Amino acid sequence: MYGGIEAGGTKFIFAVCDDNMNIIERRSIPTTTPDETFKEVFKLFDKYDLKAIGIGSFGPIDVNKQSNTYGYIKSTPKLIWKNTDFLGVFKKRYDIPIGWTTDVNIAALAEYKLGTAKGKDSCVYITVGTGIGGGSIINGKFLGGINHPEMGHFYPPRHGKDNYKGICDYHEDCLEGLASGPAIEARFGKSAKELNQDHEAWDIQAHYLAHAALTYTTILRPDCIIFGGGVMNQNHLLDKIHNKFENILSDYLEISSIKDYILSTGLGNDSGIIGSLLLAKETYSEY
Amino acid sequence: MYGGIEAGGTKFIFAVCDDNMNIIERRSIPTTTPDETFKEVFKLFDKYDLKAIGIGSFGPIDVNKQSNTYGYIKSTPKLIWKNTDFLGVFKKRYDIPIGWTTDVNIAALAEYKLGTAKGKDSCVYITVGTGIGGGSIINGKFLGGINHPEMGHFYPPRHGKDNYKGICDYHEDCLEGLASGPAIEARFGKSAKELNQDHEAWDIQAHYLAHAALTYTTILRPDCIIFGGGVMNQNHLLDKIHNKFENILSDYLEISSIKDYILSTGLGNDSGIIGSLLLAKETYSEY
Repeated sequence: MYGGIEAGGTKFIFAVCDDNMNIIERRSIPTTTPDETFKEVFKLFDKYDLKAIGIGSFGPIDVNKQSNTYGYIKSTPKLIWKNTDFLGVFKKRYDIPIGWTTDVNIAALAEYKLGTAKGKDSCVYITVGTGIGGGSIINGKFLGGINHPEMGHFYPPRHGKDNYKGICDYHEDCLEGLASGPAIEARFGKSAKELNQDHEAWDIQAHYLAHAALTYTTILRPDCIIFGGGVMNQNHLLDKIHNKFENILSDYLEISSIKDYILSTGLGNDSGIIGSLLLAKETYSEY
Repeated sequence: MYGGIEAGGTKFIFAVCDDNMNIIERRSIPTTTPDETFKEVFKLFDKYDLKAIGIGSFGPIDVNKQSNTYGYIKSTPKLIWKNTDFLGVFKKRYDIPIGWTTDVNIAALAEYKLGTAKGKDSCVYITVGTGIGGGSIINGKFLGGINHPEMGHFYPPRHGKDNYKGICDYHEDCLEGLASGPAIEARFGKSAKELNQDHEAWDIQAHYLAHAALTYTTILRPDCIIFGGGVMNQNHLLDKIHNKFENILSDYLEISSIKDYILSTGLGNDSGIIGSLLLAKETYSEY
């Protein structure tokens, strides 16, 4: 049996699966305080004889094994979780191997092993929702140097008709500040799902997300890029991103089919929890 | 003995060194046709009993070992070199291990092993000259998915006072199109070295290069970023990049000292040829 946790800032999803990745039991609860939330996870995990646990957490988190705060949630805007020793609490309770990475990395792992990126050499997974974040698997490993990427916080070039100042607390008009769900709502007074397909919002949105895809492409050269998250539930958006990407790529790099390169998720909202269980299994086999 | 080639679009530098990396003989010639240029390299390499060769080439090149054109120079603007089977020619002549990667990757390798990035876990090397390109070592390997990065070809946000359309043949106002040596010259009518330290060019240049550094930071989280290339010979520029980077990073990610994070080269113009010899040695020991 393996335990997995997809720890989001809004909700915690956690589950237990068998050796064949069949989910035996699964729960989803609102994220309250660390103590309260962890207690609910313990209740489930304590019922089983787990071999390993996989955790994918909201962040920023510390994934640098040389660091004193390895396993912590760091300077998150969710202040009650700031400086929480997430991994430490679980290591103390369960004397088994525990895998620890970001929420977007476990989603990337699930898509890479079982989803849209199955059979590809490498992938980037980007979620466009309350925030924008990305995870990547390159050379069979989660990408990152001294710590994990924050792929939503570089500054894209402005869309010519967009004067919105941006909503990011740190950067104003970084990618997250211009193209996350809250940015759309603040700019147009309506949420993504309330905006008609022919609203100018979508041209602006496609501009920023195509530039995100091109930026990841030029820096990482992955085998594919997968867009997930709530804002991507508008099906027409992916087509618009394809068109805009083709336009700005300008035949520079060999990409045989843009439709097979920029993809939607294969596992939908389950990529996180499935990825956390895959991480548990991988952590066990590497142990 | 090891042989190394830093194959640039303007000149080829090649050398032979002993086991301790002492350079025994070194030459630099203008890059003419593939046949003529290779013949000069053969003349040097044939004199020694080489154990391995390392090649860092201008590109785009094919570094995907599964590809039919692995080892080729691809769609380069230098048309006489387009679709040249560079690695194949050397494999045919020398039956020894040959390492093959980009010119910026070998510079990154040299800085990582012996230069400014020595002792760091990971690094990005970016050259700002006739073009802009970057190489990176993450998790001890050259970064790349299905092929090598082209780190100069994403689109940065515009500097508020810069209306120059950009010089890149493919993208116009990508990073290379706005911040390479030829872009500076086309915009201001003077080359980088002719422009006074207080010219507005440097504020614009620092803006684009700081955004490049931030983009690499958010996507890769390397341990350091090294700027090399002709345009960086203006010493005041690195300070301006530090200031601008601090401003746009906006305390978001933990970087203890920006001056120790964004660095100039430790090996200067020698990073390429030294890196090619290091690549030869590594290729031999992995063989």
